Amino acid sequence: MSVAEQIKPFLDPKSVALIGISRRTGTESLNVLEGMLEQGYKGKIYPVNPNASEIVGVKAYPTVADIPDGVDLAVVLTPREVVPDVVRDCANKGIRSVVVVGQGFADGVDGDGQRLQDEIVSITQGSGVRVVGPNTIGTANAFRDFSLSFLKLVDMEKIPVGLISQSGIFFGRINELNMIGKGIDLGNCCDVDHSDCLEYFEDDPDTKVIALHIEGIRDGKRFLEVAGRVSQKKPIVVLKTGRSQQASRAAQSHTGSIIGRDEVWDAAFRQCGLIRVDNVDEMSDLLKVFCYVPTMAGRGIGVLTFTGGLGIVAIDSCEAYGLEVVELASETRQRIIDVAPPWLGVGNPLDLWPAVMTGSRRYGDSLKDGLHMFMEDPGIHAAILILASWMERTTPSLTDVLLEVAHSFPQKPMVLCPYEGWLHDVRRKELEETLRKTGKVLVLPTGDRAIKALSRVAKYSEYRRSLAD
Amino acid sequence: MSVAEQIKPFLDPKSVALIGISRRTGTESLNVLEGMLEQGYKGKIYPVNPNASEIVGVKAYPTVADIPDGVDLAVVLTPREVVPDVVRDCANKGIRSVVVVGQGFADGVDGDGQRLQDEIVSITQGSGVRVVGPNTIGTANAFRDFSLSFLKLVDMEKIPVGLISQSGIFFGRINELNMIGKGIDLGNCCDVDHSDCLEYFEDDPDTKVIALHIEGIRDGKRFLEVAGRVSQKKPIVVLKTGRSQQASRAAQSHTGSIIGRDEVWDAAFRQCGLIRVDNVDEMSDLLKVFCYVPTMAGRGIGVLTFTGGLGIVAIDSCEAYGLEVVELASETRQRIIDVAPPWLGVGNPLDLWPAVMTGSRRYGDSLKDGLHMFMEDPGIHAAILILASWMERTTPSLTDVLLEVAHSFPQKPMVLCPYEGWLHDVRRKELEETLRKTGKVLVLPTGDRAIKALSRVAKYSEYRRSLAD
Repeated sequence: MSVAEQIKPFLDPKSVALIGISRRTGTESLNVLEGMLEQGYKGKIYPVNPNASEIVGVKAYPTVADIPDGVDLAVVLTPREVVPDVVRDCANKGIRSVVVVGQGFADGVDGDGQRLQDEIVSITQGSGVRVVGPNTIGTANAFRDFSLSFLKLVDMEKIPVGLISQSGIFFGRINELNMIGKGIDLGNCCDVDHSDCLEYFEDDPDTKVIALHIEGIRDGKRFLEVAGRVSQKKPIVVLKTGRSQQASRAAQSHTGSIIGRDEVWDAAFRQCGLIRVDNVDEMSDLLKVFCYVPTMAGRGIGVLTFTGGLGIVAIDSCEAYGLEVVELASETRQRIIDVAPPWLGVGNPLDLWPAVMTGSRRYGDSLKDGLHMFMEDPGIHAAILILASWMERTTPSLTDVLLEVAHSFPQKPMVLCPYEGWLHDVRRKELEETLRKTGKVLVLPTGDRAIKALSRVAKYSEYRRSLAD
Repeated sequence: MSVAEQIKPFLDPKSVALIGISRRTGTESLNVLEGMLEQGYKGKIYPVNPNASEIVGVKAYPTVADIPDGVDLAVVLTPREVVPDVVRDCANKGIRSVVVVGQGFADGVDGDGQRLQDEIVSITQGSGVRVVGPNTIGTANAFRDFSLSFLKLVDMEKIPVGLISQSGIFFGRINELNMIGKGIDLGNCCDVDHSDCLEYFEDDPDTKVIALHIEGIRDGKRFLEVAGRVSQKKPIVVLKTGRSQQASRAAQSHTGSIIGRDEVWDAAFRQCGLIRVDNVDEMSDLLKVFCYVPTMAGRGIGVLTFTGGLGIVAIDSCEAYGLEVVELASETRQRIIDVAPPWLGVGNPLDLWPAVMTGSRRYGDSLKDGLHMFMEDPGIHAAILILASWMERTTPSLTDVLLEVAHSFPQKPMVLCPYEGWLHDVRRKELEETLRKTGKVLVLPTGDRAIKALSRVAKYSEYRRSLAD
């Protein structure tokens, strides 16, 4: 059985045993069974609890051995002391995939935790049983309406992001992005690790981009080999935390991870073609760009603004992150000069404001003209629109203008960066979703963040092209 | 007349002449008169337009000379060719404060623009007339319901931020912050410059923190002297744009600014005690911290999370920006150990999740306990709460918990960093405003951004203390 086949039941189980599931349900109970039912999981669920004959209407069993059928995935929710025994029962029952949820194993400070985790490992090692955890929120798969996360508020969306994490936090949101296409929280990584999951996502047709959260890696050699191979097929975005000595110690106590010097990680990631981000905002922005817009064919950026001030900020950002605010083609320049006030310095970035102020055309029409001219310029591989002073009730509307331009230029991404109060408060989410459906236009909060994210996509594309040479 | 007295009419005029104001009103007309009336300006307004006897019900005059009364402030909205003549008329009328709104002066690429701007300067130099602009959105003062910004959507709020800018963009929002306490867009800076405005804000009782947007400075020596003096009384946050050669050239064309090497700026800002930010997000975060929470008494940070993963990210950030994730006092440690699971590594950051999972107390009560213990620790000068897995309908509510703790510890700031979908989409703005009113609790998007902003405030406090020694 390949590693990918071993990992599959964690994300796509036909049947799940919930061992030690509580009878307590409702608000604050965080009952996994209740959560799974609410999320619409279609497989079979076997609650295991010696003190209940049913929980929320589902027949319960006193022990794993009492379950009459075969089981794909066991989720162990018992107190830590009995976990090794439960894992042994699962192995005896022939269950080959086990998630251990509880905390207080290698992540604890008393000796007992480490001993208990070692016991789990020695029971399963060589038995064909794979273990995710301990200290995990579990796994989730939006394509199967399946989530072990006890948080009922988790938003799931069928997006092509595969998440491999050592913290449950990323199962909620990565900022404003509904993250969960598919996700695995590895917790303490006593058995299943990042490399195993990378092998699963490598050829998974639902996954276009892989997000990694790493506190530590046990088998560095294998990780480099697998990650280096997978990154040649799919982009891998990495948030490696625990840079400092203090953070490393905390990571050790959070997930019992083995850690190493940060510069070594940096070099290793670069060597494997992995894309390292510094924080959660960057992770979120970059995943959005990979998911929702076409890849830039080069580093040439066109910046359109309604404000000269932020155009200059955008040049600073391009310089810092390695994109090129290209000179406009002479045809593009001439077309703009023909409609601009005579004194306007026409170039890139282009401030549309003077044309709007002095011209007789409607706001939206001026914007549409400007975007068209920029998108037609062969040196511009992506356009960033930094919007300010745009009125909500203007016609044609912002959405109409962007949709029309996106339709005409399917190969070039556009990013909208709105500095508007009304867009932030009321309409952004709505606008974002409408535009996202085009597969060409994305909304990101600021020009700086848009340029940083696009630059990393451009560099990754170059990496992929360099491999093809 | 002191410089501060010269600048005052730009922000607090008793009467305003709008010269060249259009008769066109309504959507997309950007009519300044209409905007001023809507915003509730209480002073007298004199529209000047030879082709109208009234505009939106306000009596109009054919020329400046025809205005029967004295005028505090003239706003010139005519095409650029006639601006020098209008400015001369204003001077003859005895108006000592003139805003020139139009573009195409030193910001233009044809020779005419520079010549016209030079003419304005030669008319006013030595005459006692001060000029803001050209190429400006004007000035605004929320404390007087006064704004020349033609954008009717501008949000004004009586917040203690004085803005000195070279772009109109910051008159809308600085991201999610309603920026305008008082603001001046200097545009091309043909006369009134950053130093003049700093002298105004220096002793202005409405202004607690000053935000600067700089593309270029003409009189560097005076700026260093004034800024160095003012920063000893009030924090000055600077966004200096145009770092690269390309951006410098664009700044030259945007506002005709004289620019210089970025490292020179960096050193100069540091020498004067100015706080430089890299982008608009940082500007917004930092202004919020200065405006809305008490100053930290030291660099000690306490980090509370519901997620070990983001606790480690917070340590990375503290290390990067120079705050200290302090060791807990032994009393604090012992108090937490008494209520935590036996295996939990109790320290800072503290993951509240295990206590919530294994304890019998309600979510909100566990959080309140944890916050209380942290805030009482003498080494902790500010607490950051990184929230995840919090349910909207839990009681006691998040707001109640935070309000109660804030009430008990008036001298220590708390920052809430929510990773929750429901908080981002629906409740954040509401929650933010409720908490802001306490003057102790702030909401910022991520731990990383909160730590960066707090670190700068802590360093500024040290600077102020070092001056007092």
